[in-house]
Amino acid sequence: MKRNLSLMTDLYELTMMNGYTKLNVTDKIAVFDVFFRQQGQISYAVAAGLEQVIEYINNLHFDDDDIEYLRRETDFCEEFLTQLKNFRFSGDIYAVPEGTIVFPNEPIMVIRAPLSEAQLIEPALLNIINHQTLIATKASKVRKAAGNALVSEFGLRRAQGPDAAIYGARASIIGGCNSTSNVLSGQMFDVPIKGTMAHSWIMSFDTELEAFEKFAEIYPDNTLLLVDTYDTLRSGVPNAIKVFDKLKAQGHKPVGIRLDSGDLAYLSKRARKMLDAAGHTDAIIFASCDLDENVISSLNSQGAKLDAYGVGTRLITSDGMPSLGGVYKMAELIEDGAAVPKIKISDTQDKITNPGFKTLYRIYDEYGMAFADLIALEREKIDETKPITLTHPTMRYKSTTLEKYTVRKLLVPVYESGKLVFGIPTLAESAKYCEQEKAMFWDEYMRNDNPEIYKVDLSDELYELKQELIARYHKK
Amino acid sequence: MKRNLSLMTDLYELTMMNGYTKLNVTDKIAVFDVFFRQQGQISYAVAAGLEQVIEYINNLHFDDDDIEYLRRETDFCEEFLTQLKNFRFSGDIYAVPEGTIVFPNEPIMVIRAPLSEAQLIEPALLNIINHQTLIATKASKVRKAAGNALVSEFGLRRAQGPDAAIYGARASIIGGCNSTSNVLSGQMFDVPIKGTMAHSWIMSFDTELEAFEKFAEIYPDNTLLLVDTYDTLRSGVPNAIKVFDKLKAQGHKPVGIRLDSGDLAYLSKRARKMLDAAGHTDAIIFASCDLDENVISSLNSQGAKLDAYGVGTRLITSDGMPSLGGVYKMAELIEDGAAVPKIKISDTQDKITNPGFKTLYRIYDEYGMAFADLIALEREKIDETKPITLTHPTMRYKSTTLEKYTVRKLLVPVYESGKLVFGIPTLAESAKYCEQEKAMFWDEYMRNDNPEIYKVDLSDELYELKQELIARYHKK
Repeated sequence: MKRNLSLMTDLYELTMMNGYTKLNVTDKIAVFDVFFRQQGQISYAVAAGLEQVIEYINNLHFDDDDIEYLRRETDFCEEFLTQLKNFRFSGDIYAVPEGTIVFPNEPIMVIRAPLSEAQLIEPALLNIINHQTLIATKASKVRKAAGNALVSEFGLRRAQGPDAAIYGARASIIGGCNSTSNVLSGQMFDVPIKGTMAHSWIMSFDTELEAFEKFAEIYPDNTLLLVDTYDTLRSGVPNAIKVFDKLKAQGHKPVGIRLDSGDLAYLSKRARKMLDAAGHTDAIIFASCDLDENVISSLNSQGAKLDAYGVGTRLITSDGMPSLGGVYKMAELIEDGAAVPKIKISDTQDKITNPGFKTLYRIYDEYGMAFADLIALEREKIDETKPITLTHPTMRYKSTTLEKYTVRKLLVPVYESGKLVFGIPTLAESAKYCEQEKAMFWDEYMRNDNPEIYKVDLSDELYELKQELIARYHKK
Repeated sequence: MKRNLSLMTDLYELTMMNGYTKLNVTDKIAVFDVFFRQQGQISYAVAAGLEQVIEYINNLHFDDDDIEYLRRETDFCEEFLTQLKNFRFSGDIYAVPEGTIVFPNEPIMVIRAPLSEAQLIEPALLNIINHQTLIATKASKVRKAAGNALVSEFGLRRAQGPDAAIYGARASIIGGCNSTSNVLSGQMFDVPIKGTMAHSWIMSFDTELEAFEKFAEIYPDNTLLLVDTYDTLRSGVPNAIKVFDKLKAQGHKPVGIRLDSGDLAYLSKRARKMLDAAGHTDAIIFASCDLDENVISSLNSQGAKLDAYGVGTRLITSDGMPSLGGVYKMAELIEDGAAVPKIKISDTQDKITNPGFKTLYRIYDEYGMAFADLIALEREKIDETKPITLTHPTMRYKSTTLEKYTVRKLLVPVYESGKLVFGIPTLAESAKYCEQEKAMFWDEYMRNDNPEIYKVDLSDELYELKQELIARYHKK
């Protein structure tokens, strides 16, 4: 993302920044948390987008045109506009690596930076993280439903604009897709690209058989034939079998057929029988037609004979829940060296934020399985030689003590004083890491329907601080 | 959009193109229609995205890196890779201008180009048109619900990636929003930008009152205060009134307050009374909190006292229907000068495509109101001196004859033989055009709930051609 997205911010961020400059409080350091709340289809999420956040931050700068635009359109002071001209991000960022399994209410990113800098980046950072995390999570659910079957991301033409297609494909790979149809994403992120023919190929020949034959001549070792242009079972599959017979006689291995409409359960069972009867037991049946994790689960439960899926619209738009409500909330303000924890009060218990500069631990039990996450203040230390007690964030009477356990700090340093200190993994590495991450959770937490709720607890110290701030607020 | 999106295509398009090269049929000319079907919340749609399609097509080219990538990842022949190196779009494109009100099943774009060229651009073109048309349509529904109230697009942080935010804001303006919070969109498309303060501004001061006072000092003529950080009615509104009193005494005009949580109907009524009682009858109440056309309608029907809306997540993602299913279907193939109309057969009546090189007319009645749209073959002519008979696309016994009417051709030339022949309007012009377009439809077609279905008819000649092709297919 080499584009200059520096002005891709909400006007109010700049309005506040200009205010901080005029009030001469630009030396205040703020800590902001990024987290999302329990929402719709989300029980867990697959964190994604960090690499693009890094690209965005590395590229942050205001060109003369940008300054001129702001001078013309706003009443910002010249001092502030000059500051923008020399703007660079000088703060710290901690984040969970891409592919990490994360849960509602826990900080997945912590920004500690001069107040104005932290404000400026809020919208772009949320935009990128919300989008890619949403799609990686949806892909993970599709992967869960598809079992070991190959899944290709097919959503380019229905995505919400070019980036949604390009980075949605990227996020899909992190979440568990094997490939994409989007050639640009393949090129940008070095991931496998897949695709064979459209109905228009078939329609550009006089007959379906001719279209199949010509394709097989050109791609004898990559012949996946789309069989639903005219009539799947009476025309498409029989014609495909004729072509497969010929390929086989020539020593080639036909790939299989693609079903793109109709009742996929019925058609796949019938087509499987036809292919098998003709001796093409290795030919796969690939399905693509408004698929998502629910449709795939349903097809599986009906005994559909499908070997691979192309998943488009509903994956790339996260149909049913097209946004992740990730927020960016102030947790601490440091003025003249003194840190003041901040809290956002709400009538809704779940919407009260967690104050202070925090970190996030994952606690694994003696079998190496994830047991609970623990949100704690950064200054707290966990002594792994002693038992650990984990307590529910609001119902404090609910607690568990573990004797044998291991701890992993999930938030890792990405920027320190504006310097990138994080080694960006390849997309394939992030995808592999995500798979490994998921293997450390019991299936019951990861299932798509009615998953068991994974524990995200608060340390005693953080809990006490929170109660103290709530009490102080109510006294006012 | 100066980025090189040329590889943003589905692999199968390139696979087919390589096939056409190997079969030596690259001189075939194809006609493709872009249209969408009746779907979810869509009765009418606001066409949008043409300007970005033009940018994409003007910028189409394959760099050496792209060619090298394809050479490495595919088994395409060198002849084809060389063709790509010299690729430029040489065809014709007809489209409805942005802001045009369009309906299911009618061609909103027609591409007439060498088969390979037409295939290459399919995914990017659909991506752009599907996205922007979807958001412009959603914005139009929000505008309808909001009446004359100001509506600002606020969705940047929840959009599906940067483009979804940037071009979503653009489409929102076409559909009827007045402004956006996204500064980059403001700069790129010369549209008004809006925004004041976040909760973090309030939280960065010791008290809410101090935060308000400081803001009013800096922006005395642009003081819109966010009143829900601690307690809207007991803290926010009273503090705002104190600040407004002072501003007024100094000769300034306070703008108003913003409600961002809680029961907006109740809070707005109470806040209105408090503001009025304090003499601030001009102060507006601005609402932002998971709004969409349904919430706004509901607030109106409850008598909420709201003057302006910030509409974010649900607009920018078209929540409830996050994709428009626009398709790209072959309608004709011209080989050695002979045009062969093409049809895609389906068991579902509505999914059978309309064959041939077509155009789209809008018929206005004697009062100048839109009466019906007519899909006809391009070669047909309408003689406006004679009565016109409009007939239902499938139930042919349903027809109406108009004596007095006027006709407008909705599809206009955009490219002729690869040359741009269309004068791109400014975004403000497209927004204004959209407003004028809507004024020519009876409200009953435009209402959000259970709208009357607008007639989209087929000419006799097109109907006959379609029947002939269906019959010919069934005979096979």
